[in-house]
Amino acid sequence: MSELNLEQAQTMVAAALAHARANAMNPLAVCVLDARGALKAFAAEDGTSLNRADIARGKANGALALGMGSRSLLKRAKDQPYFISAATAAIGGSLIPVPGGVLIRSGEGKIIGVVGISGDTSDNDEACAVAGITAAGHLPDPGAD
Amino acid sequence: MSELNLEQAQTMVAAALAHARANAMNPLAVCVLDARGALKAFAAEDGTSLNRADIARGKANGALALGMGSRSLLKRAKDQPYFISAATAAIGGSLIPVPGGVLIRSGEGKIIGVVGISGDTSDNDEACAVAGITAAGHLPDPGAD
Amino acid sequence: MSELNLEQAQTMVAAALAHARANAMNPLAVCVLDARGALKAFAAEDGTSLNRADIARGKANGALALGMGSRSLLKRAKDQPYFISAATAAIGGSLIPVPGGVLIRSGEGKIIGVVGISGDTSDNDEACAVAGITAAGHLPDPGAD
Amino acid sequence: MSELNLEQAQTMVAAALAHARANAMNPLAVCVLDARGALKAFAAEDGTSLNRADIARGKANGALALGMGSRSLLKRAKDQPYFISAATAAIGGSLIPVPGGVLIRSGEGKIIGVVGISGDTSDNDEACAVAGITAAGHLPDPGAD
Repeated sequence: MSELNLEQAQTMVAAALAHARANAMNPLAVCVLDARGALKAFAAEDGTSLNRADIARGKANGALALGMGSRSLLKRAKDQPYFISAATAAIGGSLIPVPGGVLIRSGEGKIIGVVGISGDTSDNDEACAVAGITAAGHLPDPGAD
Repeated sequence: MSELNLEQAQTMVAAALAHARANAMNPLAVCVLDARGALKAFAAEDGTSLNRADIARGKANGALALGMGSRSLLKRAKDQPYFISAATAAIGGSLIPVPGGVLIRSGEGKIIGVVGISGDTSDNDEACAVAGITAAGHLPDPGAD
Repeated sequence: MSELNLEQAQTMVAAALAHARANAMNPLAVCVLDARGALKAFAAEDGTSLNRADIARGKANGALALGMGSRSLLKRAKDQPYFISAATAAIGGSLIPVPGGVLIRSGEGKIIGVVGISGDTSDNDEACAVAGITAAGHLPDPGAD
Repeated sequence: MSELNLEQAQTMVAAALAHARANAMNPLAVCVLDARGALKAFAAEDGTSLNRADIARGKANGALALGMGSRSLLKRAKDQPYFISAATAAIGGSLIPVPGGVLIRSGEGKIIGVVGISGDTSDNDEACAVAGITAAGHLPDPGAD
């Protein structure tokens, strides 16, 4: 089955937060979008800063917009900062090119959604997204350096 | 205690969705913001339309922006449509003046957040928000006609 | 002398809030702009809603934008709602056409700034703005019905 | 007590301006936001440029958005300019990554607001914000290089 449902999305949020708590990370904002880019599930740990959710969503939006995990967007931002800047404007203002926006792929490799996380280091944010997607039985695609 | 925490917000989401399912309502988007207007918890039932989440959030934003449940915004929209139109622009574009944006008040009457729901009739959306807030032990303020 | 200085603007804020407190009004946001539309002084009473300041500023912006107290904008909104809607968009999104945006005129009638207030009834908001401007020795121009 | 009230915010504005005058600085715009990002108090010294207030507010917004004094944002802007550019877009367009946006922390370390100042050198702007917050009995957090 190739669609993301609410139960799976909520499992991803819960598992991502559990991973962060088990590793004593900073408070995270965790956002799950479906394949259309529509918000499916979200939670902000107590103590997150005012716009932390917007950063998490920006990682998710960017990954889905260009069809690659946001770690690949970071590489592109270093190589061609003008492209990332222009793409951000073109898609409407929300594309955060650092790790932590991880595509959700079905068994056949189809993109069925994305998890975006912000609050700790980018590497830790990404690790929580991977843990969440894996816990729900899907394949995480964080992109590559 | 006068701050909304994640556990309470997640209780609100779960109880609102349970109320909708028990009453065979259409699929809902349920959004909880804290007192800062920051997204705290969210879930979209399977089958919601593409921008349903934005409608739910617009009800929540509007209620918090002006400090009144969105049922009161509906009355204002009928009495002074130019005011609601102007206020929407002034606060940055997201204010939905129909029932379903319900303020969360603490025991002392302080606004500690807001629940915004969209997907079924406005009256049903509001009833789910009230059920959610009540389940978490807080006071719902839906506004007045 | 025909320029608004900070001391005068702060007198306006203090006198407007004093008038509100003496009359047991709801918590107000009080905004003073200079003749350029630049923010000069501001205070939000404790307990104001999240975007109350934006409403106060929208009254002030609108009055200054069109050179008439916002009571006159209310009349225009009733007569020609499409004009107010279009003007709001044209000036960049912030024009609130209800009383409470009161021009500050010098002895020679020149516009030297504007006070915008929101939080209580529009009539009460306007009365506080008039009290503030008068206390600073300038002439209030609230517009006309 | 962990909320910023108007009296404290006005003390911060007055003390920041007094520090600037005592040190013969350029005219400043001084902005205080509460923990919600809502404007609480503001003053612009006579002679400030047309959009000086927007620069002050952008420092304050950025610090609150990401939960770090704007000196830390400067470091991030140097290390990852694409991140700061993207975050600015994601949070809605106002984030100034130079010193002078100083978080207000309560005794327990909680963020209860932010002071943003612009008009002189960034270091001097920051010194005035620190002076203002200290005068009101709270802890300034300017961020780190």
